[in-house]
This record gives sequence, C-alpha cells and structure tokens, in this order.
Amino acid sequence: MSIPLSEALIMHRYRSHTCAALRKSDVGSTVRLSGWVHRVRDHGGILFIDIRDHYGLTQIVANPDSPAFKLAETVRGEWVIRVDGEVKARTDDTINPNMPTGEIEVFAREIEVLSAAKELPLPVFGELDYPEDIRLKYRFLDLRRDSLHKNIMSRTKIIAAMRHRMTDVGFTEFSTPILTASSPEGARDFLVPSRIHPGKFYALPQAPQQYKQLIMMSGFDRYFQIAPCFRDEDPRADRLPGEFYQLDIEMSFVEQNDVLSTMEPVLRGVFEEFADGKPVTHEFPRITYDDAMRKYGSDKPDLRNPIEMQAVTEHFAGSGFKVFANMIANDPKVEVWAIPAKTGGSRAFCDRMNSWAQSEGQPGLGYIFWRKEGDNLEGAGPLAKNIGPERTEALRMQLGLGDGDAAFFVAGDPKKFVSFAGAARTRAGEELNLIDRDQFKLCWIVDFPFFEWLEDEKKIDFAHNPFSMPQGGIDALENQDPLTIKAFQYDMVCNGFEIASGGIRNHLPETMVKAFEAVGHSREAVEERFGALYRAFQYGAPPHGGMAAGIDRIVMLLVGAKNLREITMFPMNQQANDLLMNAPSDVSQAQLRDLNIRLNPVKKEL
Amino acid sequence: MSIPLSEALIMHRYRSHTCAALRKSDVGSTVRLSGWVHRVRDHGGILFIDIRDHYGLTQIVANPDSPAFKLAETVRGEWVIRVDGEVKARTDDTINPNMPTGEIEVFAREIEVLSAAKELPLPVFGELDYPEDIRLKYRFLDLRRDSLHKNIMSRTKIIAAMRHRMTDVGFTEFSTPILTASSPEGARDFLVPSRIHPGKFYALPQAPQQYKQLIMMSGFDRYFQIAPCFRDEDPRADRLPGEFYQLDIEMSFVEQNDVLSTMEPVLRGVFEEFADGKPVTHEFPRITYDDAMRKYGSDKPDLRNPIEMQAVTEHFAGSGFKVFANMIANDPKVEVWAIPAKTGGSRAFCDRMNSWAQSEGQPGLGYIFWRKEGDNLEGAGPLAKNIGPERTEALRMQLGLGDGDAAFFVAGDPKKFVSFAGAARTRAGEELNLIDRDQFKLCWIVDFPFFEWLEDEKKIDFAHNPFSMPQGGIDALENQDPLTIKAFQYDMVCNGFEIASGGIRNHLPETMVKAFEAVGHSREAVEERFGALYRAFQYGAPPHGGMAAGIDRIVMLLVGAKNLREITMFPMNQQANDLLMNAPSDVSQAQLRDLNIRLNPVKKEL
Repeated sequence: MSIPLSEALIMHRYRSHTCAALRKSDVGSTVRLSGWVHRVRDHGGILFIDIRDHYGLTQIVANPDSPAFKLAETVRGEWVIRVDGEVKARTDDTINPNMPTGEIEVFAREIEVLSAAKELPLPVFGELDYPEDIRLKYRFLDLRRDSLHKNIMSRTKIIAAMRHRMTDVGFTEFSTPILTASSPEGARDFLVPSRIHPGKFYALPQAPQQYKQLIMMSGFDRYFQIAPCFRDEDPRADRLPGEFYQLDIEMSFVEQNDVLSTMEPVLRGVFEEFADGKPVTHEFPRITYDDAMRKYGSDKPDLRNPIEMQAVTEHFAGSGFKVFANMIANDPKVEVWAIPAKTGGSRAFCDRMNSWAQSEGQPGLGYIFWRKEGDNLEGAGPLAKNIGPERTEALRMQLGLGDGDAAFFVAGDPKKFVSFAGAARTRAGEELNLIDRDQFKLCWIVDFPFFEWLEDEKKIDFAHNPFSMPQGGIDALENQDPLTIKAFQYDMVCNGFEIASGGIRNHLPETMVKAFEAVGHSREAVEERFGALYRAFQYGAPPHGGMAAGIDRIVMLLVGAKNLREITMFPMNQQANDLLMNAPSDVSQAQLRDLNIRLNPVKKEL
Repeated sequence: MSIPLSEALIMHRYRSHTCAALRKSDVGSTVRLSGWVHRVRDHGGILFIDIRDHYGLTQIVANPDSPAFKLAETVRGEWVIRVDGEVKARTDDTINPNMPTGEIEVFAREIEVLSAAKELPLPVFGELDYPEDIRLKYRFLDLRRDSLHKNIMSRTKIIAAMRHRMTDVGFTEFSTPILTASSPEGARDFLVPSRIHPGKFYALPQAPQQYKQLIMMSGFDRYFQIAPCFRDEDPRADRLPGEFYQLDIEMSFVEQNDVLSTMEPVLRGVFEEFADGKPVTHEFPRITYDDAMRKYGSDKPDLRNPIEMQAVTEHFAGSGFKVFANMIANDPKVEVWAIPAKTGGSRAFCDRMNSWAQSEGQPGLGYIFWRKEGDNLEGAGPLAKNIGPERTEALRMQLGLGDGDAAFFVAGDPKKFVSFAGAARTRAGEELNLIDRDQFKLCWIVDFPFFEWLEDEKKIDFAHNPFSMPQGGIDALENQDPLTIKAFQYDMVCNGFEIASGGIRNHLPETMVKAFEAVGHSREAVEERFGALYRAFQYGAPPHGGMAAGIDRIVMLLVGAKNLREITMFPMNQQANDLLMNAPSDVSQAQLRDLNIRLNPVKKEL
C-alpha cells in the first residue's frame, strides 16, 4: 500500500528555490522560500513583502484571503521567515524589469517565523550613511546591505580569479607559517609570547619574504600565496590596522623580464575580468624610475593624466628671466621642468595654479599661456615677457602646445622639487579635466636605485629592499658610485597607486655581504638579520625573484571603493578595535602568568 | 640588413627546458638546463651528472672531449649549475624506463656554476633517516628530498582540489580575521599584546567558529575557508604546535542532512582523486553515536576492521559462568559484549589476547574458541566449559562464527568498559590481519549526546559543542532527561580517525540560554562568552549549520605519512621551536616597553 506523499512532505524544510530563482516559467508552481524580510509595504490592505537571501529578492503578496495574512501583518524588517505559496505572474504594469524575479510574485499560503528581530540599530534596506562605529559593532547587519554584500562578493571573486590565473601559469600555492620569527622588513612586528618558552616570543609575519625565498632554496619552482601579512603600524588611512593580504609570488631560474612577462597577463586578466567594461592597459609600459620621476614627478604615476613633464633648462639658461637664469648659472644641478597643460590657457586658471602652489608653501608657479592675437599665436604672462618671443616660441614647439594651452615651470635641484612638480602635474590634470577616470592605466616602474643618500645621517642606505640584486652584481658594488647603482627591482602601478612590488633577489651570499657593508653593516649583521636565508644561500641557491601584489588595493580599485572597510568583511576600526568581537580585550591574571608576562603599570597611575 | 641571431643569443638565461622535459624526439637539439647537482658518477673518466629541478631529473654526460669537462669535474652535490649541451639518445642498454627523461642524456658543452654549496649537513640524494633537529634546521635541504617534495606537492594539490570542489557546489571562500578576540572553544589561546591599547590583548582564532556563524547572520549563504587555526596546547604527537589548517564550511537554511549530503561528495571526491587507486567508500554509512560505541567501542571506528561487537548478555544471565552471571543479576546496567574474532580460534592467540588485556590493566579477557572435533564443532576454553554447550552454541550462532574462530567477552557497565572493548576489537583485528589497510573506509557518526555527566564534578556539561542545536529544541531542554538529549552534531571518520566534525547550530537565543542554564550558566554568561553571536541572533538569524575538516589529517591519510612534519613545509618541532627561523626568540626591552608588558622574573633567579 502506498500513500501518496503530499508536496509539503517532499519539500525541503526551508526552501524549494532561492529568492533569485523564480521566473515566469514557474507561474503556477507551489514554492517555498526562506530569507530575510527586506521591506514590507501595505497597499490598501494588501501586503507586499520583499524577501531577501544571499542570491536575491522575491516579492511575496498576502491579501486578506490568504491564510498567512494575519501572520504577514506582524512581520518586520530583517525577520527571517519561511513562506510557502504559489507563483503568480505580475500584471504588465507591475512587472519590474530591474530584478531577475520581477515578472512574478509569490502568493503566500503559509508563513513561518524562523527568527524575529529586535528593533534595528542600523537599517538594511536603503543605503543610508551611518556612523562607522555602529556599522562595525553591528557588522552582521551592515553586511546585509546591498553595496557591502556586493563588494565582499567581488573581493572573493577577484581573489579566486588570482588563484586560478596563477595556477594556470604553473604556480603552486603554499601556506607559510603565521607563528614565526621577528622579520627584518622594518615595520613593527606583532609579537606572541611563548608559554612553553618563557620570556621568548613568536612574531606574526610582516610578509612571507624569507619563507618564499626559502621555498625556492628548497627546490620548488613557482610559488604563490594569498598571504596574510601583519604590521603593527600606527593608524593610517590607506591600511587597515592589523592584517592585510597580498598575492605573494616567487620563481626560480628567472630574470626580471620573466617575472614581468609572467605576472603582467595574470594581473591584466584580473583587471579585465572585473573592470566592468572599463578599458585596461593592454601592454604595460616599462618606465624606468628616473624617467617616471622626470615625466610624472612620481614613481607611482597616474597615467590617466596625459601630462608629461619635460626638461626645458636650455630655454631659460642665459635668458631674460633672471631668477631662473641665475639659478642655472650658479649651480649645475639646477634644471627647469615644464608642466604642459593643454586647455589651461587662461590667466584665471594660471593664477589659480599659482595660488595653489603658494598654498603648498612654494614661492609661486611660473607660467606661460598661449592665445591667438589675430593670426599670431602669442605667449602671454610675465615669464614670456622676460624671455622674449623667440624662446617662448621654442618652448611652445618643444612642448607641442597651441592656442588655449599653458605651461608651468619649476626650477631648482630636481631632487628637491620633483614631488612638488608631480603634484602640480596632478593638479593641472584634475583641474582641467584631462583625466578620463573610467579606465585602468597600468605600467611597470623598473630600475629603482639600489641605494639612497640619507641627508640627515650623511650616509647611504638601501633605497628599498636589501634582498634585491644590484644591477651589475658584486662588480658594481666594488667599482661603481653606489648612488648610480640600480636594483633589479620593480613596481606595478595602476592609476597612481603602487599595486605590486618585487625584485630579482640577491642569492649570492658574498654579494649580499658586500651590499650590507656598503651601508655600514658587517657580515655578522647579515647572518643575524637573515639567519635562515643566509644559511640557505650557502647550500646551492637558485637565481630567483618575485613580487607581491596588494590585494586590498586592487579590490578597492576594481570595485571603486574609497575605504578599506568597504571591501573587508570584518575590519577593525582606525583605532585597531574590533567592535564586533570586542578585541583587543582584557585577559586574566592566570593567562598572563601562563605566558610569563606582566603588564607594565600605566604611567599615570604612578 | 639582418644578422642571424645565434641560438645562444635567443636562449633563455637559465633554461630552454625543465629537467623533466626532454624526450627522444628532442635528440639533436641544443638545450640549456639549470638545476641542482643531484648525483655525480665517474665511470672511467666519463662523468654522469644527474641534474635536478622542481620538475625532474636529467642525466648530463661529460667526457674528456667536452669543453665543459674540467669544470664538470669540480661540481659537487647540491651545487646549482647551468648546462648547455646537445641531446643524445641513450644506448638501448642504458635507457632508464623509470624516469621520464630516461631515453636521453645531454652531452655537456658548457657549464656555469650559479651557486656552489658547502659540505652538506644532510644528504639530499638518498632517503636516509636523519635526526629531526638537523632536518628542521636545514629544512631547505630536507625539502629537496624526493619524498618530502612529493608530500608537500600532494598537500597543495589536495587543498586545491578541496577549493575547486567547494566552489563547484556553490560555496564562496571568505577569510576571517586572524587578530581577533579570545574564543570560547576551550583550548588555550595564543595572545597578542596590543601596542595601541596598553594592557589589552588580541587572540589568534582557535577556529573561525563565531565568524562563520556571523557570516551566515550577515546574509551570505555558503561559506568555506582553508582556515588557519591556532591553539596553544602542550606538545601532542597528533598535532603540530601552533597552527593547523581546517576546511571550514557553513551553510544557511539547512538541516543536518543537507550538510551531510553536500559534503560527502566533496570529500569522497577528494579521497578518490588522491587515493592512488585504493578503494574509497562510495556511500558513507551514517552510524549513530550509540551504535558506533556498541559495535566498535569508539566514535571514530576503523571500518577497515570487519569486527563488529554484539551484546550477548542474555547468554550469560543465569549461566554457569558465575562471575558474569552475578554481575548481571546484581546490576541492571551490566551487559556482556562479545568481540567476534574470525580465524582467532587457537588457544595461543586467545592467551595472547588475555595477556594483552592484563597488560592494559584489565583482570583478563574471557574467550571461547571453536574447533572441529571429528564432525562436531566444539567451543573450547574455560568460559565454554562454564556455560555449557547449549549456550556456547547459541553464542556461536548469534555471532556467526565457525571452525577456527574465537570470541572475546567483556562484562560490566558499558560506559566503563567500552573503550577497552574497542581497543580489544582493534587488537584482535590487527593481530589476525583482518584489516585490509589499502582502502579508505569512511562513515558519518551522528546523534552525539548533547550533554554528558561529569562524574568528578557531579554535574552535567556540554558533551561537545555548546553551539549545536539540541534535537527536540527548547522543548527537549525543558521536558527531557538531559542525558538522553541528542545533538544535531556529526563527525566524519576515516580509517579510525575523526577527519571532520560539525553540527546544526543553535540559532535561537532562548534555546541557547536554556541549554546553558542546564549546565549551570546564566544568560549573562552566554552574553559574555558569545557576545557578538548572541547579539547577532537577536536581529534575524537564519537556521544554519556546517562543519570543519582537518586538512593535515586528511593529507596524512592520503599520502600515508605517519608524522605531521612529513606533510608540513615549515613545521615547528615538538617543543614548539622553529629551528629554521629561530622562533620563538628574545625581543628587545624597547619592544616590550612598546607593548606595555614586562617579563616575569624566572623563578629560579629569585
């Protein structure tokens, strides 16, 4: 004897469909949905309930004929309910083409409250601005909001795409230890007291730099990791307190070009996949550090800004503009750079730039602008007057400017004015709307200087990464002016942000010692700071190199978020508090005793 | 005018092929390889150098005619070299069918030493046993050894397979914070002093339990993570000090069967993919906790062992074996369990088992064994004599035993003897070689008790996970004997190891409070211990559940490793020291001051 199972009996306890699944073809079916009450509207006694889950929204309808009507009247926003009902087609005038389920609605036959909600401290429906502390404390509500939900899903898809693409080009993912030794990267470590070894501490890794190099020493060829990194830094707007993630990679038996040509398609692919149709640079220009500084005044140039600076010293040398001419005559280091500004050719704009420069602490910003006077193209402004029409015309020709354009000039030791010049370039590009923001302009910056001069300490130091191989190797270290030595070191830059950085590593212990000696450290210091790595270099080290890309920054660029907390699921606030979990927090005396530590008495209590 | 590029000019700086790439079809080509010198053999003036990289081995040949011969004579094991040469076919008698490049060798024209090696503290060629401390200190050499290299690559592929399979069934990977609050899981937390908040501490997560539940509260539906977990435990053979990884998952709007039927194909698939041809259970039996304890004496039964225990109390009640008969008569809790042991029917084996039981602190292990006496099947041993042939035969029939088989018997309160009975089952299976080890036998254990009785404290406590939903919900908590309440909680077991554990969560705050009250905690204690989660439950909580699978254990099972350090790239030793990086280590007074902590003076110095 077989008893026919009712539909309800064979239906899943919570849902037959997700809230994004139902279409016109489902009209007539009996369905079961579960989700959050997104919004309730009462249209003259008929209730419309938008029910929401991870996947989407569906409109539920209950009228007084519905057996579920009484309960439907009681539900409120963010209650979790189960609804059984019948799929009905919407009338033509109520179809919502903006939602995938917009052609149907579900007529409620039965509603079950799975979980009620107290009055909300933070609305989920509607994208209102709320104080950040409330948002973080009730992060589980904040995350239900559409924009944040989307951002977090994008983040996760971007990371998955990085993984796929790295795997596709032959890389293997390895996790490196999180409880490790204090690292020499330079930032402050988070420390973890050891209970088993009283008085000793582990450190959380600032980056897996040493481990990834050790992986190469260990005979693995192409490593990557979505690596958590930890730096105990003071609050900074562009970095979350505590932890951040990087796409960390390393390769053996490679030169610089191998790393660049391997990683460029990977990251271009990720950008193209998530750019939402915006153009992405196809072939990343490789710009030397020196060129980047001269053309853009920055080693992270925003190439969406078309302005390229040019040296125009010769036009001012011996000219009637005595301020510049005298500087040039008195100091061979002095140069004059021009910032050409197409469409900037009005006195009003030039004066605005000049005022801005003064607000930046500069004496001012010299300029020339060009305008048609009858059939003549005339350079206007005090500088043009001082240097005369011939030099003005030569400048115009060099800079490729015309009617309605302007150029700004900075003079001095480029080392000292370069960052101001870069800022002026940015300012002019922004003010003149020369920047097409809806694109991703990527480039490589290469040939960074290996050493830099520390004016305060009157000594040289590593400019960036002591792990990098100096170009020219030990020979350069022995025979070349250190400040002219370049490193096999490179950054990837997108829209003015450094999104990745890397280098070919120095795998030769003697070259490493020589490099450290150049900045005043002994062989012993190398051994102490890089114990494991220095030891490994003694036992057969392959040439290797790699890079690390900042995942948080890449996600921010791709989703267009302005704040790291908009792309991070459970971020701390700027004061390094996790308001949701209440961390950091007090611990018991017993825990401290276990760890063999005591708290310092707080000073003001002394 | 075009100048023909020489082959050398267009060749990559380090390699034209990997050391696993060359085949017979490459004979005649000029190639470039880079790698480690694996082994050098001198065959009467001809040098054979096996060169090794991540991918494989290739044999290099240099004879005195080779321009590279002089240098080839100097290279030693683990030097990193580049070799240019010509691919030649091996003669038929020197072909090595066991290596992919075994049909060819490369005749060396030029060798470059990329990195020499000092005398090795640990050989790479040959799989010798070396002291663990040396292996860990020189992990970069240890990892070059074939077995470890293979294990690490398997680990990485297994994790990648988990990721793919989870993604394929609609899960999304989210990383949860590593710097977080102390968690109530019960083990000791690693603490991280906060510099910005003096006297306060972060904790590293013991598991992302609260976060994953909060992700469900936040409206995401199917979460997974390859999650690093941290427990500050005393050294244990089966867990590395510090960190371990779990495949952590959670789902919303599910019941127990949804989690089981979702995860079973995922993990079965992983096992099948990496089982190397060994059979894997196709449909995992779902065994209740009670049944598992009765049949196998364990909630992590090794189902490769075919022995299933049976209760045989009735056969001893009122029997001539007075020890058992009296126990049964005096205490209704007393049972007698039989451990049937096919092929164990010899007095020598039964006596061996009896001695083993005594070595385990038991008074002994009663047994009967069956043998043919003429045409009769006779039960032998003192027990059989005491209970007589009828009861002996009834026992044999129930247990399905025959000539040459035995059964062992334990009597008493099953709660007290069950783990010994389970050990006896294991012992008998192993001693009799009843276990076919070359297979993966998987099952689910379900219906764990929600509470347990703490004899020492004379109170009930949570048997496992206070986050789980009790079967029967708040109604059971209010009306049922607590020790009879089951939890929606389940383990996945493979070959005697718990490889995953999970549950349907208690998402109803009132039910949660009621459960905690049953073990003597107040509502306030719940709020304090589970602050974020308890708060989230107030604002619309979906029914949800999940599990976590132990990645390290699964990898060990699949690669057949006996020790966690054989499947972990950079493990600590059992004393929680990282000998490679030298962690934990001393830190400076300045660092301690920054963190507002001091060391306790070591006691013996007082």
